[in-house]
Amino acid sequence: MEAQLSAHTRVDEKIQRVIDSIRPVDNEYVQRAQQRLDSLTKPLGSLGQLEAVAAQYVAWREELAPKVAGKAVYVFAGDHGITDEGVSAYPREVTPQMVYNFLAGGAAINVLARQTGAEIMVVDVGVDTDFNGAPGLLHRKIRRGTRNFAREAAMTVDELNAALQVGIDLANEAAAEGRTLVALGEMGIGNTSAATAITAALTGKPVSDLTGRGTGLDQQRCERKAQIIDQALRRHFGEYETSRPEPLDIMRCVGGYEIAAIAGAVLGAAAKRVAVVIDGFICSAGAAVACVLAPQARPGIIAGHLSQEPGHRVLLEAMGVRPVLQLDMRLGEGTGAVLTFAIIESALRLYNEMATFGSAGVSEASPS
Amino acid sequence: MEAQLSAHTRVDEKIQRVIDSIRPVDNEYVQRAQQRLDSLTKPLGSLGQLEAVAAQYVAWREELAPKVAGKAVYVFAGDHGITDEGVSAYPREVTPQMVYNFLAGGAAINVLARQTGAEIMVVDVGVDTDFNGAPGLLHRKIRRGTRNFAREAAMTVDELNAALQVGIDLANEAAAEGRTLVALGEMGIGNTSAATAITAALTGKPVSDLTGRGTGLDQQRCERKAQIIDQALRRHFGEYETSRPEPLDIMRCVGGYEIAAIAGAVLGAAAKRVAVVIDGFICSAGAAVACVLAPQARPGIIAGHLSQEPGHRVLLEAMGVRPVLQLDMRLGEGTGAVLTFAIIESALRLYNEMATFGSAGVSEASPS
Repeated sequence: MEAQLSAHTRVDEKIQRVIDSIRPVDNEYVQRAQQRLDSLTKPLGSLGQLEAVAAQYVAWREELAPKVAGKAVYVFAGDHGITDEGVSAYPREVTPQMVYNFLAGGAAINVLARQTGAEIMVVDVGVDTDFNGAPGLLHRKIRRGTRNFAREAAMTVDELNAALQVGIDLANEAAAEGRTLVALGEMGIGNTSAATAITAALTGKPVSDLTGRGTGLDQQRCERKAQIIDQALRRHFGEYETSRPEPLDIMRCVGGYEIAAIAGAVLGAAAKRVAVVIDGFICSAGAAVACVLAPQARPGIIAGHLSQEPGHRVLLEAMGVRPVLQLDMRLGEGTGAVLTFAIIESALRLYNEMATFGSAGVSEASPS
Repeated sequence: MEAQLSAHTRVDEKIQRVIDSIRPVDNEYVQRAQQRLDSLTKPLGSLGQLEAVAAQYVAWREELAPKVAGKAVYVFAGDHGITDEGVSAYPREVTPQMVYNFLAGGAAINVLARQTGAEIMVVDVGVDTDFNGAPGLLHRKIRRGTRNFAREAAMTVDELNAALQVGIDLANEAAAEGRTLVALGEMGIGNTSAATAITAALTGKPVSDLTGRGTGLDQQRCERKAQIIDQALRRHFGEYETSRPEPLDIMRCVGGYEIAAIAGAVLGAAAKRVAVVIDGFICSAGAAVACVLAPQARPGIIAGHLSQEPGHRVLLEAMGVRPVLQLDMRLGEGTGAVLTFAIIESALRLYNEMATFGSAGVSEASPS
């Protein structure tokens, strides 16, 4: 994925400065992390992906004795005009209902955040309800839901920039609060449709190969959903399999406020060297747009899990990231990402705390 | 895998009584667990394998509000006569060296046990050294290493029964101490060769398809290792691809003391309804033998992870269990199993703590 900024949807200057401030990874840290890993009392490479995660974090944070501080999960919520087309198994009211469930502590993400000691930040970027200043909620509403992308662009250029900025601002606050590792998640009825559209437009893969059951569609409604998305993409981008639309055009035309905020959070976090764990399909769609705009943000991203949505595998492969967990989850909210916190912390503890061959008096492998 | 007890290697009467005391799962609990899961504020089935793990644990423990108590990991250590054939990248002294590393707290399993709050029990079942009553070690040595199975049976019938009993006794103690969830692990230079031999003999799959790099062999030594194992199996069992040798004959002829102790621990835990998390390839070989002897033990087994050893996938498929993690680990010690504790606890917390649709006022899916 190569950054080719659109003539239509320009990156706001303020956002461009954030992108420009993201530094590439210093390979010196990757090498020193690998040396450390190879000195530990275990066969070379035998901790598999845990070693890759530890080395990635060391290099991203530029800390040879890596620590995690201030774990948090940001759940971005927004509604989607595309639900007018009947693409979801759940009614649109479920978005605000679930936001209240997050605030009350009863959702899956609350349980996992409590278990792992992560703070949970619930962000209204575009839910179609008036929360009346509900306490505990971060009020960043841009509009009460996107427009129906089957008929028109989901958002305006200004709305897109505002949504990106929501994520950037929260990432800046996270860094200022000393957070080193944050998870991103989302809630929004209809947003697998937006993520599917983004994935098809970014990768050129046909929608029919990418469309899944979402939160629980049957086969017939799933096929109808694919049709609607396919037609919408042709309306916005012509032959999207070959026309390679620009990433910000894609986000503006078929994205969501919460998805754009996630893209912004990835960019903002990368600029401050906060590591981000992305969740499932929808969250990855936001991160993928960020990575096209700023490929140097990618080494700061840990893919928490592989969702059951068929488009997710395609998207992660296109991004070149490997998911940590594969548990057939398809819930969102950041659940797969927060579940991964424990694995990441295991990787870092092993890196920091294991004895070396030298210190433990253990013989190394004999030469083959 | 069907139990067909051998005429050659009979199960000791005491062990047979343990096997006979394992009760099958009561489906009532499986159904009630599923009802609870379906009432929680999430799309049906959207927690994927976490739901399966929660339901399994509820049914195994027969607890509708499942709790975990007294987490522990048992690391069984033993040496292998087959190392005389040059099948390992590491010298045999590494087994006792790593046992001392476990006792000193510097190995990977120590780090993970500390993180997850699990007690670690290091058990000498057959290490080729005199530990001189080293404190902290559970001294259950049967012999200083098995015999070289390329030339003769790895152990005698009495030694096999004694090794099985070591595992049963420790499982009984675990249950008496109130433990509900234990991980099993192992350490033993040469024991991927034993596990490969067990897997080939149990499944009838050719050794060449099952043999891996172990702790770090190159291709040439890997091929030589496969040849040695293949020849040994033919010596003990003739055409092992079709002769279907008996499980205890397999363990006696080509197994290991630590692997037999693991088989015993699985049986003993099943009799007391303690849930066990198995680790990688070697540990699974012990569990697989236990499951052939007592298929009703299987619902108490959670497969922690899928190892990089090619035989492991074959073995888990034959057992009909699905691994929780797939992180390309190949370390042993119980590391993959203990890493899974956090995921299992997440599954149980979600099951216990999430709000229901009714309690949270969230709308359910509309009918398709």
